[in-house]
Order: sequence, then C-alpha cells, then structure tokens
Amino acid sequence: MKIIEGGVTAAKGFQAASTAAGIKYKNRKDMAMIVSEVPCKAAGTFTSNLVKAAPVKWDQKIVKESSFAQAVVINAGIANACTGAEGYAYCQETAAVVHEMLDIPEEAVCVASTGVIGMQLPMDRLAAGIRAMVPALDGSLAAGTEASRAIMTTDTRNKEIAVQFEIGDKTVTVGGMCKGSGMIHPNMCTMLAFVTTDLAISKELLQEAVSEDVKDTYNMISVDGDTSTNDTLLVLANGLAGNAVITEKNEDYEKFRKALNVINETLAKKMAGDGEGCTALFEVKVVGAESKEQAVTLSKSVITSNLTKAAIFGHDANWGRILCAMGYSGAQFDPERVDLFFESAAGKIQIIENGVALDYSEEEATKILSEPEVTATADIKMGEASATAWGCDLTFDYVKINADYRS
Amino acid sequence: MKIIEGGVTAAKGFQAASTAAGIKYKNRKDMAMIVSEVPCKAAGTFTSNLVKAAPVKWDQKIVKESSFAQAVVINAGIANACTGAEGYAYCQETAAVVHEMLDIPEEAVCVASTGVIGMQLPMDRLAAGIRAMVPALDGSLAAGTEASRAIMTTDTRNKEIAVQFEIGDKTVTVGGMCKGSGMIHPNMCTMLAFVTTDLAISKELLQEAVSEDVKDTYNMISVDGDTSTNDTLLVLANGLAGNAVITEKNEDYEKFRKALNVINETLAKKMAGDGEGCTALFEVKVVGAESKEQAVTLSKSVITSNLTKAAIFGHDANWGRILCAMGYSGAQFDPERVDLFFESAAGKIQIIENGVALDYSEEEATKILSEPEVTATADIKMGEASATAWGCDLTFDYVKINADYRS
Repeated sequence: MKIIEGGVTAAKGFQAASTAAGIKYKNRKDMAMIVSEVPCKAAGTFTSNLVKAAPVKWDQKIVKESSFAQAVVINAGIANACTGAEGYAYCQETAAVVHEMLDIPEEAVCVASTGVIGMQLPMDRLAAGIRAMVPALDGSLAAGTEASRAIMTTDTRNKEIAVQFEIGDKTVTVGGMCKGSGMIHPNMCTMLAFVTTDLAISKELLQEAVSEDVKDTYNMISVDGDTSTNDTLLVLANGLAGNAVITEKNEDYEKFRKALNVINETLAKKMAGDGEGCTALFEVKVVGAESKEQAVTLSKSVITSNLTKAAIFGHDANWGRILCAMGYSGAQFDPERVDLFFESAAGKIQIIENGVALDYSEEEATKILSEPEVTATADIKMGEASATAWGCDLTFDYVKINADYRS
Repeated sequence: MKIIEGGVTAAKGFQAASTAAGIKYKNRKDMAMIVSEVPCKAAGTFTSNLVKAAPVKWDQKIVKESSFAQAVVINAGIANACTGAEGYAYCQETAAVVHEMLDIPEEAVCVASTGVIGMQLPMDRLAAGIRAMVPALDGSLAAGTEASRAIMTTDTRNKEIAVQFEIGDKTVTVGGMCKGSGMIHPNMCTMLAFVTTDLAISKELLQEAVSEDVKDTYNMISVDGDTSTNDTLLVLANGLAGNAVITEKNEDYEKFRKALNVINETLAKKMAGDGEGCTALFEVKVVGAESKEQAVTLSKSVITSNLTKAAIFGHDANWGRILCAMGYSGAQFDPERVDLFFESAAGKIQIIENGVALDYSEEEATKILSEPEVTATADIKMGEASATAWGCDLTFDYVKINADYRS
C-alpha cells in the first residue's frame, strides 16, 4: 500500500465539482458534489446525537434501504439541523434536482450539510448550485481538492488523502476528504467525511469494515466534547478496479481494512490537528492496559479535559491534570503505578514514575511541548492493551470563534 | 429561616484564623483554620476521582472512623495530590501540630488543600502557619470572612453565607464558606466547602442530610468538566444551640435540611458564578421531565457544553447548541417537542417551540443574555420532574488562567 496524491476523485470513475452558491458565506465556494460514473455500494456511520440533522436522517435511509448510491451533495454554512419537516423536504428536493439532471434515482443521492443549527436552507440557491456544478463535474485530482475546500467551515486547512494497493493484478484506490473543526467529539464519526474507492466489495462487508474502523479513528478524536447533530461518514465503492468482488474476510479484505484505516486515521488526525483555534495536535497513548476499552476510556478522558488542553496551549508540563483526567474517567487503575512521558519532534522525557514526579527539567519539557504535534504516553502497567486518542489545545481563538460564530 | 451575616464563625462556638504562610503565593494569606470549642459530629462528601489527594484520604478516614472532629486546617497554593506516602505523612504532621497546641486529638483534625497537583507541601511553613494562627483564633464574623479569603486560588470573590432558624425556643445557626473556580465539575462536591452549625444532631442523620443535599447543589454545578482530586465538603455540628438532639427525620430535621440546602445551593452558585475567567452565571432548568434523573442528565449536559458556554460569553442566542448538547447527553426525549426560553433580569423570551425556532427578536435575546445571571429553561413535555444546574460562560480569561497556571 502506498499513499498517493489526491482525495475523493483519486479512485476510478469518481468526479467532483464545487461552486459558490451563496448559501451563507460570501466570496467563497460553499457547495460540493461527488458523483460516480456507475452505481456504488454505500456504507456509512452517523452521529449518535439524539438530535439528528435532516441530511443524517436522509442518508441513514439510503445506506440502510437503497440498493446503491451514486452521488453526494454537500453544503457548508447551514447545518439543516432542528429544521423540522421543512428541512427534511429540502433533502428530497436536493435529490430531485440531481435526478432531473443526471438521471440518478433520488434514493441514490446522499446529502450532507454543515454549519449553523436551526436555520432553513435557501433551497433556490441550493438548486442553482447543483445546476452550476453538474456541467463542471470532473475526475481530476484538482476537482477533488477544490471540493475538499468548498466544504470547510471554521477549518483552516482542507483535508484529503488517497492510497493505492494491489489485489492480484488490479490496482485499488481509496481516497477521502473531510471537514471538521468545532463540535467534534468522539461518538460515531463527528464530522463530515467522504471516502470513495473503486474496490469491488459486498455492501455488508463494506459496512462492517467502516463500522469497525471508525472505532479506532474518528471515534478517538475530540476538539471540544460536543457531539454534532450532523456527523456523517459516507463510503462509496463503485467496483471499477475490476478485482474479484470481496464477499468474505479474506486477505483482500484485510488489505482494504488497512487502506481504509490509513485514510480514516489520517483524516481524523487532520481534523483534531485543525481543531477550532488550536495550535497543536495532542496525541494521548495509554499503554499497559488490561483491556482496549479501559485504554480508550482513559485516553479519551485526557484529550477532552479542558484543563489539560489549556496546559498544552501554554506548553506547560502540568502532568497533574493528565493524571486527574484519568482519575475521573470512570476506568479503574492504580494511580500510584502510572509512568508518564511527553514526546515530540524535540525529544522525549519521562515526567512521572509510579504516580510521583521525577526530577525532570521543566525547560526541556516546555521545549518538547512547544512543537505542533505533541504526544503524552501513560503506562498503567496492568496488561498488554493500548489505545491512542487525538485532540488539540484549548486557545483564545477557540473562544473567539465560538463566542460569535453566528455573527 | 432567615439569612444572616457571616460564614463559618456565625454558629456558636466556632472560631477561625488565617495567615500568610508563604506556601506558594506571596503577599497574601494562604492558610486558614476552623476550630470548635467543643467536639463536633462530622459529615463529609469527597471527590469521586480515583486520583484522590492526600487530605481527601485523611478526612475520609476521620469522617468514617473518628467519633468526632474539632478542627480543620486549610491551605491554598498546593493541592497535596499525587504526592505519595510523603504527602499523606504531611496530613498527619499537620494534625500533630494542632494536637500539640490545642490538645485536640490528631484524629479529630481535618485537613484540606487546594492548588497545584504534584508538588510537595513545605511542611515547615505549614507548621509555622498553624503556630501563628492558633493564638489568633477568633469567633468574630470578620475572622470567618478572612478565612474565606485565605483559601481562594483563582477565585475572584470570597464565598460565604449563614442562616438561622428556630427549633422550639432555641436558635440554630448554619454557616459556610467555600472556594472553587477551576477544575469544577459535578461529581460529589468539586471544591472545598466548609459548613459549621451549632445544631445538635446524630452523626448518621448529619451525614444523610449532607449526602442528600449535595445531589441538588454542588453536584449540579460545573465550570469546566474537570473533577478535581481534592473536592471536599466538611460539615461540623457542635450541638451548642442546645436543641434536643435530632435523631430521627422529624420536623426539626426538615428545618435543618432546608437551611443546609440554602447554604449549599448558595455556595454552589457562588462557585459557578465565579468560574475561572467567567463573566456570567449560566443556570439551566429542565422541566416537564419524566424523571429527576433525566432532567439532571439533560441540564448538566448543557452547562458542560463548551460551545454553549462560548455562545453565552458572546451573548449569542445560539439555541441549536443547547438542543445539540441535550441530544448527546444520553437521556431520551423527543427533540421535536422541546420548548426553550431564555430569561434574565432583562426579561424573558421564548426561542423555540416544538423543536423549531420562533420568529423571536435576536436583539431582545442578546439583551437578555447580556446580564450577569442568565437562565435557559427547556420544557420537554414528558412529565412533572425537573432539575436545575449551574455553570458559567467560557472566556478568553479561562484559557489565559489555565495556560499558565503554574508559572
């Protein structure tokens, strides 16, 4: 498997387009479309929030009930959440416009929205956006990159990645893009992410691979502890790679799992590292755990601690807050056996041994914590299981962005 | 029952003192003591964090095993948490100094610490502080107020309150003080709080009253979602009011419950309203719930949402974030039946009805949200139960305080 250029248009038969529909932002693109030349197997995971946006309800139905999907329409600026029957009707109207122009059945058109909750979409502009995008659909890598830019809200960077691997003499490509910066918290996939592949695979195994992989990727990141109403991961597989259709968990399936994991982990880390206002990606590893579940609970508790996040912003080796956050996580462990290390491109340092501080150099610790990617590793010395979670620091800019997001 | 002046020295037979021991802060008092003339029944609740500070372990033992308590020694600046056997030994040494000077048994001397985790206490300064305080012990209201100032860390205001009520011809007084501004999250009592009363009551009923009351008071506040290692509520009852000892849940017990509730709710709200860097107390009421538990879960989810807290800082009626936070709380309800109201000294406004926004005035909503105390009420129309939680806004200053807390 190798990482290649591109995103959602890297795999065979996928095209993308984007446009400035004027939904909420001015002077920038705010809509994107992904279309496959041929019908795709579709899998997805969605927000666990009880308050689900209309597009989430629409896509859940497609993933569950439709035999295939072939297009996705995405808008930024308005989330189409808490919009009642009117909001849901707009999903259907969006699909109807695509159907009219591309002859794809309405029930094969996924939709996704991100932005402010509670406002209704300007359906006329949305429809005009689709009409502008369809003639511009393009399979170039640049078109995919443009699409990944169009779906940004408070993101500061677009996020895409693609990989290739071989099945027999066939080359399979998997590419993806996502957006996500605020209202990001691990519970299902808390963002919008779109992965396309030309792999041939059964719908059941595609869904299983996706459902398994989100546990280690999107569900392990947090920016602010707020699980969105709109979180959506859609994976479309159109089969154009020409491999023998994967219908069982064989070696080929494992190759795809590995490729999917690289795509999802990379996109997830890109979101955490581009958290609203953040200056650093904060990785927390818990090792020596009795069970994976225990390691997950502990690592997620640390990345969601506001106090720890503020300390990372301050490049402050305030390890007590990490131990504190592990302590209130609900997982059992012996605080007096914990070893803790900080690590980054600037070096590695042990801070505590068996729960008590070592005589480490604060200066060196601060240097290590001043890098854009910082890792804390806690060894709880109970077993062999481990987990890694990704978050970011809590900064003035996070507050600034969210104190006047709507204005 | 009436609210009176004073705090921990308001009840008969309680004295306080405070001093600048130089433990960490310069040019300010950082130690306080409370002493009762006579032995007290003691009750307490403590942090649920698995990582418990040494003083928490010490006090838990006293509340559980000692027949009485008579003194409390408190320091600010260093939390004596994650300090191993050495830290626990300092609790005993502190008690030994009090025993030496006041002839109170070591096992009747409670200790409490707040501040940085992981540093060892300078025991010599702590001992010198006690030696300086004992001759200065004083039953005046001013001495209690000074003590409430000495235990502050990032608090901007000292916090105390006292009430009186009658049992037969006897006047009973209950007074309290607390500190707490950061690392405040509802799970047990997340702060240091000390309540003194001259009530005569059995130890069992005192503990029961305290344990019940924290559920509706301290456990319903949050500043930042971080449950501290040091949270302690201690209630000392010395019996000097002269009432017939309360040994059953009679009318007198209910009077005390009511007084205790006023003390605890007032102190809890003072902490939430003085959250690190905050500009507003944010009260969230959930009404029309099927059960108290459901209302508690929903209201706490809203006050702990960073996005909602940032919106309150921005005086932004971003109600979608409130509905979103209710949605990911884990409690079941129908988002499409929710009514939501904002209220403050500036007025009251309904924002959503049955889950969808009304055509309310943003200007009026912003005016209401610009007051120092703001209430959001969500009616979920399922039953008769309700709960109230208290938090605060998330501000630049919260980040500032916590990015360089140790420096």
